[in-house]
Amino acid sequence: MTNVKIKNALLSVSNKENLLDVVKVLNKFKVKIISSGGTHKYLKKKGYKSIEISKYTGFKEMLDGRVKTLHPKIHAGILHDRKKKTHLKEMKGKKFPAIDLIIVNFYPFQKVVTQTKNHEQIIDNIDIGGPTMVRAAAKNFKNVLIITNIEDYKEFIRELVKGKGSTKLEYREKLASKAFGLTAYYDAMITNWFNKKLQINFPDRKVFFGRKYKSLRYGENPHQKAAIYINDFKDRETGLRKIHGKDLSFNNYSDIYSSLDILSYFKKSNTTVIIKHGNPCGVSSNRSRLLSFKNAFACDPVSAFGGIIACNFKIDKKTATEITKNFCEVVVSKGFDKQALNILKSKKNLRLINFSKYKSLNKTITKFFDNSFLMQEKNLRIMDSKKLRFVSKIKPSSKDLKELEFANKVCKFVKSNAIVITKDMSTIGIGAGQPSRLDSCKIAIQKARIFRKNKVKNSYAASDAFFPFRDGIKSLAKAGVKNVVQPGGSLKDKEVIEEADNNKVKMILTGLRHFNH
Amino acid sequence: MTNVKIKNALLSVSNKENLLDVVKVLNKFKVKIISSGGTHKYLKKKGYKSIEISKYTGFKEMLDGRVKTLHPKIHAGILHDRKKKTHLKEMKGKKFPAIDLIIVNFYPFQKVVTQTKNHEQIIDNIDIGGPTMVRAAAKNFKNVLIITNIEDYKEFIRELVKGKGSTKLEYREKLASKAFGLTAYYDAMITNWFNKKLQINFPDRKVFFGRKYKSLRYGENPHQKAAIYINDFKDRETGLRKIHGKDLSFNNYSDIYSSLDILSYFKKSNTTVIIKHGNPCGVSSNRSRLLSFKNAFACDPVSAFGGIIACNFKIDKKTATEITKNFCEVVVSKGFDKQALNILKSKKNLRLINFSKYKSLNKTITKFFDNSFLMQEKNLRIMDSKKLRFVSKIKPSSKDLKELEFANKVCKFVKSNAIVITKDMSTIGIGAGQPSRLDSCKIAIQKARIFRKNKVKNSYAASDAFFPFRDGIKSLAKAGVKNVVQPGGSLKDKEVIEEADNNKVKMILTGLRHFNH
Repeated sequence: MTNVKIKNALLSVSNKENLLDVVKVLNKFKVKIISSGGTHKYLKKKGYKSIEISKYTGFKEMLDGRVKTLHPKIHAGILHDRKKKTHLKEMKGKKFPAIDLIIVNFYPFQKVVTQTKNHEQIIDNIDIGGPTMVRAAAKNFKNVLIITNIEDYKEFIRELVKGKGSTKLEYREKLASKAFGLTAYYDAMITNWFNKKLQINFPDRKVFFGRKYKSLRYGENPHQKAAIYINDFKDRETGLRKIHGKDLSFNNYSDIYSSLDILSYFKKSNTTVIIKHGNPCGVSSNRSRLLSFKNAFACDPVSAFGGIIACNFKIDKKTATEITKNFCEVVVSKGFDKQALNILKSKKNLRLINFSKYKSLNKTITKFFDNSFLMQEKNLRIMDSKKLRFVSKIKPSSKDLKELEFANKVCKFVKSNAIVITKDMSTIGIGAGQPSRLDSCKIAIQKARIFRKNKVKNSYAASDAFFPFRDGIKSLAKAGVKNVVQPGGSLKDKEVIEEADNNKVKMILTGLRHFNH
Repeated sequence: MTNVKIKNALLSVSNKENLLDVVKVLNKFKVKIISSGGTHKYLKKKGYKSIEISKYTGFKEMLDGRVKTLHPKIHAGILHDRKKKTHLKEMKGKKFPAIDLIIVNFYPFQKVVTQTKNHEQIIDNIDIGGPTMVRAAAKNFKNVLIITNIEDYKEFIRELVKGKGSTKLEYREKLASKAFGLTAYYDAMITNWFNKKLQINFPDRKVFFGRKYKSLRYGENPHQKAAIYINDFKDRETGLRKIHGKDLSFNNYSDIYSSLDILSYFKKSNTTVIIKHGNPCGVSSNRSRLLSFKNAFACDPVSAFGGIIACNFKIDKKTATEITKNFCEVVVSKGFDKQALNILKSKKNLRLINFSKYKSLNKTITKFFDNSFLMQEKNLRIMDSKKLRFVSKIKPSSKDLKELEFANKVCKFVKSNAIVITKDMSTIGIGAGQPSRLDSCKIAIQKARIFRKNKVKNSYAASDAFFPFRDGIKSLAKAGVKNVVQPGGSLKDKEVIEEADNNKVKMILTGLRHFNH
């Protein structure tokens, strides 16, 4: 018999919501209730009987409640093995009753963190007694039921009624697993808060934590189950507000985050990014919102089909009209004019996302593998005008440098090896994801020739890593590129620069590689 | 004054290593030592004085030690605020002394898990009292020092000597942050163990945990700091044993894991994979180890330059000789013949990795973004012969099906959109990472024509997702592809199949998309 009849329950909750529903059913099954200070007062006010913890233990709570439940009577009550004679004898000897149900919720640490910058107050709110009871009860799930979440009350009531005052082992184990999920999550919040405060980016032990935000229809492919988790340490939302359309898919989320990464490097509200399969296939900055979109789209209209469009500005009517001429999956922006919204909403399946509230929180980024993870600082640096090396005979003008900076920024986000050709602050050819740099050059040139033929002359190019040979520059120059930015650092830099000079190409070296896999 | 003089210390360690060094210095500064059962016995045996916890609290430990430190005298001793008059008064009233130093280490949960499959025994080893003291002390780092790791003893001794028996606030806070790192890590292990046992892949709260395995020279790029973390829940190593060469870099690790993912789909020990920038640029299965490598390499020798080579067999002399003819960064294999090892070691910088002990542990894979993560089941499915749809007029032979299965497997691991052309169980052209499928077809064909011209006739192709238009098939067929495997599911499947028939191309549909971003 693995069913356990609940005789004594301990309730200690900061959030009293729906608590009475539970208390009523506990009363029905004649469960004796022990309660902590606040919970006790609440129950008394509502007319329900319970024994205050201090009374129960015979030990008056001390240190403003810091020591209250950390008492042998409580923990022996939870932890003893009901099947072990020696345990039962000891319990009898001390007159310690068994406690079979614990309902605890912690005062939300993340809430305090968002409400105050007072470190002392934040640390004061770290719960010690609560997690200890939760862990003890979860450990002893064979005998004890632990409830840590208000959302689990309904199921508990059903289980208790069904079991006529008893609960099943599988149910208790399920909630035990959940309880350890909570204590791990809680301490993960705390250690990450400390690490942030102390600016420790690579701690000895790193713990990532997430709360399931949504189950997704499927993952990268239809046969893979998936969910999105958020870290509600600072935000209870992703910062991506859906205004219209179907649920976001796994690939949508992935592409949206890629687009927001790129946009974070464009401070002026005049940039459009189009993403497909994680790669940008069009980026443009333009004072005219309409042209910003049009030029981004023109870079590769074939690839943009079914992609996601992200604008770091409020979308207006004209731009909305232009967007609806083609099929895309998601439009992400810093809001929509009223008329624009009406126009876009005419597309039933199109997802519209406002990212005005999105904030970047972390300085590191992590790549997970099966039995390990690689953590690294984000690649936050951009070309530094003070550290540039002007290596070609002809030097770029300040206008050239602006264009090269634009190309360099986009290049950071194109999967390696990456070549980005631009003109007029718009990409006109993107070569992505090739194991050979020359191939990326060829793809970028090919794209530019197909879709932006009249723009290629006197264009600009950025490369995410050095050119290992002169061939890449040669092919770019031949196509019409007249300015190149690249990190430099190849054994053959000299040859590469010579090739640039031979073709009257202006070249600058940044010293900064931008691999992105 | 934020320095804290240590008067009373509580020691409770499962691992006694180097403990006496600490005890000696505590004695020097006349610190009173309280110790738990095992630690007490050990100190007594070694001739050092300490007060046993039960004696200290006046409460005899019970339930086989389950309740021992969970006592108000201990926790008030740790938790009271030394600056608060009311606290001090209460402490005085109860005659509870302050405890200023806690040294605790937990019995390693992961060790138990690897040593037994007995769930009861595993759960028995979940420590309740230890984490509670650690958390209490870490919370009150303003007054208390918490040490959770043997490796921190040396620094502690230095600090204590420097402070003449006192410690500094910054030091105590650093160790507090570390302590919460440990409790989070510990409970993360436990909840993940439960979730695995209960087959819960997408829990409400998900916590990932890692122990820093190595700081890396840098991350994806030289200006990014980085480290690799491992999950020592089941393995204390990555399973990648370095036999020779420089330290592995961030990008090496990333590419090695990609190669192991692919190899896990080839059960026979006859396959070589070459990876560059996360993409395979050559895969071949062949009874001859030498040919397996040669054919993989021949697929794209230009891209293979500086790549990583992974073989799911023991590398022999001939293969080693062939490998050294070109520059690569890493060779990963299931061991090396003696002679092979000598040959490969002649390349000073070449990293040699034995992955015989590598094991895949997880069923899910996670992608991290700035404020969220996407978790999904791994894409473990491969084309299922029972679910194939033979849609072309000419049907593939069983030999054709084997080749198509090979192409399909490789295709899973090529960044989307992916087109893989194969012949004789070897890739001959790989088109990766293009936003448009036609472009991927073109790249794959181009590659095949450059490096494997005489293989293109009657070759095989796999596509990771459906063909949206007939153009892709047309270009593949024109190049010489005679067999195609793809998931199907496009609105234009009919046209696409018609195009296949027009070109006498055999086509099968798997119903399984293999996007990989």
